[in-house]
Amino acid sequence: MSLYIGIDLGGAEVAAGLVDDSCRVLEREQRTVALSRPVEELCEDLHGLCAVLTRRHGASLEDVGGIGVAAPGLVAEGAVREGGHPALVGMPLAAALHACTGKPVALQNNGNAAAFGEYVAGMTCHSLFVMTLGAAVDSGLILGGGIWQGFNYAAPEMGHIQLVPGGRPCPCGKRGCFAAYASAAGLVLSTREAMSAQPQSLLWKLALQAGDVSEHTVFEAARRGDRVAVQLLDTYMGQLAPGVAAVINLLQPEVFCLGGGLAAEGDGLMVPLARRVEELSFPGHGGWRTRLVLSRLGSDAAIVGAAMLARR
Amino acid sequence: MSLYIGIDLGGAEVAAGLVDDSCRVLEREQRTVALSRPVEELCEDLHGLCAVLTRRHGASLEDVGGIGVAAPGLVAEGAVREGGHPALVGMPLAAALHACTGKPVALQNNGNAAAFGEYVAGMTCHSLFVMTLGAAVDSGLILGGGIWQGFNYAAPEMGHIQLVPGGRPCPCGKRGCFAAYASAAGLVLSTREAMSAQPQSLLWKLALQAGDVSEHTVFEAARRGDRVAVQLLDTYMGQLAPGVAAVINLLQPEVFCLGGGLAAEGDGLMVPLARRVEELSFPGHGGWRTRLVLSRLGSDAAIVGAAMLARR
Repeated sequence: MSLYIGIDLGGAEVAAGLVDDSCRVLEREQRTVALSRPVEELCEDLHGLCAVLTRRHGASLEDVGGIGVAAPGLVAEGAVREGGHPALVGMPLAAALHACTGKPVALQNNGNAAAFGEYVAGMTCHSLFVMTLGAAVDSGLILGGGIWQGFNYAAPEMGHIQLVPGGRPCPCGKRGCFAAYASAAGLVLSTREAMSAQPQSLLWKLALQAGDVSEHTVFEAARRGDRVAVQLLDTYMGQLAPGVAAVINLLQPEVFCLGGGLAAEGDGLMVPLARRVEELSFPGHGGWRTRLVLSRLGSDAAIVGAAMLARR
Repeated sequence: MSLYIGIDLGGAEVAAGLVDDSCRVLEREQRTVALSRPVEELCEDLHGLCAVLTRRHGASLEDVGGIGVAAPGLVAEGAVREGGHPALVGMPLAAALHACTGKPVALQNNGNAAAFGEYVAGMTCHSLFVMTLGAAVDSGLILGGGIWQGFNYAAPEMGHIQLVPGGRPCPCGKRGCFAAYASAAGLVLSTREAMSAQPQSLLWKLALQAGDVSEHTVFEAARRGDRVAVQLLDTYMGQLAPGVAAVINLLQPEVFCLGGGLAAEGDGLMVPLARRVEELSFPGHGGWRTRLVLSRLGSDAAIVGAAMLARR
């Protein structure tokens, strides 16, 4: 049984896992790593992280078949080329980590890596789209068993499909992007807006109890029957569903997988979403529709995907 | 040099062409064919059409390597399964035409056939999306050298991406679909609405001269400086561009090809569209952007594509 390491370079927080051939995460480690440093220093840190994981498993780096790294932004030819963390842009990460560890290194965009992880870890199917709702909307597309990146490595970018012309500003610089409404951060913003307008809503009480507003606040308030929260969730579904339906109408993947923190809401999210998506999308031959499912790997998806990309 | 026949079953009007290995349409014939008949009778008519084409070229059906048929609707396993012409749904067209002519027969959706036609006729590239603006919006997607139909034969359906929640009714039964605004028919409707609101617009004079409103009326009026037409074209670009940009952001095909009657507007359509699409979409590695181009084959695209599908 071979071992692989997957590293999710999410930001200052780096999560890494020792992964076996069956996509099981045997060991997991999360730590803060400074990114704004010479690439050799960053790679030494990552090397150390790999050593910790293997040692804890009673193995050594010699037992590791390869290292996969997932990072945000446009990834091409072994480096982040645009977007993501400014410190990583242009850094020859794959070559440097290979030089430092002696291992084959695969570098891939985090949304693509997460999609590949879900795919190889058991969601084997004709085609798969994975959407992760967090601070942004990450997405990945698996066609013909491989990651689809378009001709220029920039696909799929679901988060910045225009949802509302002239709408909310998005960190990307455009306005009205799908991500500005549908991401967990977008839902938190919408929750705050609703709270400002409706001081009597139960949302206030729940936010005070929890110490802050999260993407879960509105779901909890709606479960308790708060009218404002029910209305807000309905509005949110009307923002989320058109994006999902657009992907389905264009590509008809066999499976559409939803991940990120919001996925913890389970049926509270999926049942109303599936109803809306069905209204907006078309079934195919024999009435077959894209299956909407929740992520199986959760926050491990990019780790597993990166590790399995290093296997190839 | 082998010969193939492509038949575009557009509706009551059927267009067919004799096509050579280099995708040249050697002979072309258009005629009215009644669709609501037993499949054997329809196939006898199509057989006769094939015979006319070959005879005119000094050849016979023996010189023909295969017959391709393009039809609207969801096409799977040799028949139209849903949508398109009600008379064709469920009709075993491919098997019946093969039985009648003795030739290999390929049946494909018209948008997919048109995309394959553009692809093989010279637009060879990493990946290609073809959008045809007519009474509806037809679309086709070529990935890895083949037609992408999704897992259920229903992809790509660009026309019914939701553009305006609760907007214009669409023939598909939903509201606010991209096709309801972006198709040639949608633009004609928008032109009529603008004319009703603005009786002083030059649009009236041009429509009276031409005897009717077409998708070209607004372009002509805008070229002559009509303020209402300029504003309407700007609104139209704001409807067309988000759909094109959504496809580009999701898939980053190397080429996005635009066909249909509107393509005759050339730069009048493409220059403002390209500007808007650039604002709404992302470039990839090295700054590479999807190329927006006009159809090379025009109304022959589905004929050529169907013929070339029969070659395989």
